[in-house]
Amino acid sequence: MVFANVGTLGTLPGQRDVLVALLTRRNDYLKRIGCLSYEVGVSDDHPDTVFVIELWEGEDAHRESLQLPEVQASIAEARPLLSGEFGGYRFDIAGSPLRG
Amino acid sequence: MVFANVGTLGTLPGQRDVLVALLTRRNDYLKRIGCLSYEVGVSDDHPDTVFVIELWEGEDAHRESLQLPEVQASIAEARPLLSGEFGGYRFDIAGSPLRG
Repeated sequence: MVFANVGTLGTLPGQRDVLVALLTRRNDYLKRIGCLSYEVGVSDDHPDTVFVIELWEGEDAHRESLQLPEVQASIAEARPLLSGEFGGYRFDIAGSPLRG
Repeated sequence: MVFANVGTLGTLPGQRDVLVALLTRRNDYLKRIGCLSYEVGVSDDHPDTVFVIELWEGEDAHRESLQLPEVQASIAEARPLLSGEFGGYRFDIAGSPLRG
């Protein structure tokens, strides 16, 4: 089943847009490791939060991605920007009225 | 900007899959009113919750959709299944590494 990882990443004050730039850098590698969709977002109501919506081929593809050197490098690059506050949901996609 | 509405819908015990069936019923109308993506999901860790990820052409398209009779009818149909617990995030999409 397609796996969804929806997350909120707390950033240190003033670092939100730096993190957005990092996360939205073109990265065709993600598709090759099973990432179907990766949307990065912001809200004026939450100036120190970056939102991500990830869809993966499956939960395994997502979990395995976190072990890959390239992904570890991105996480290390982002870490200094983060406040340590995280939130979100993980679930399996059951369907869509646009494909029903 | 593309607008994301990520939500959790609490259901009454045993009604989760009924709500999933309702929300995933084919509905081409949504595309015509500006819905770009509508994913419905579940998690074994949350037996009484349905997750939705909606992407809309803009916040206005999403807000206006809630006033439309067809959408109001769907909401009315779903209401008896709901526990009243809601959560989620609303934000604007800033970009994607898959399109960067």
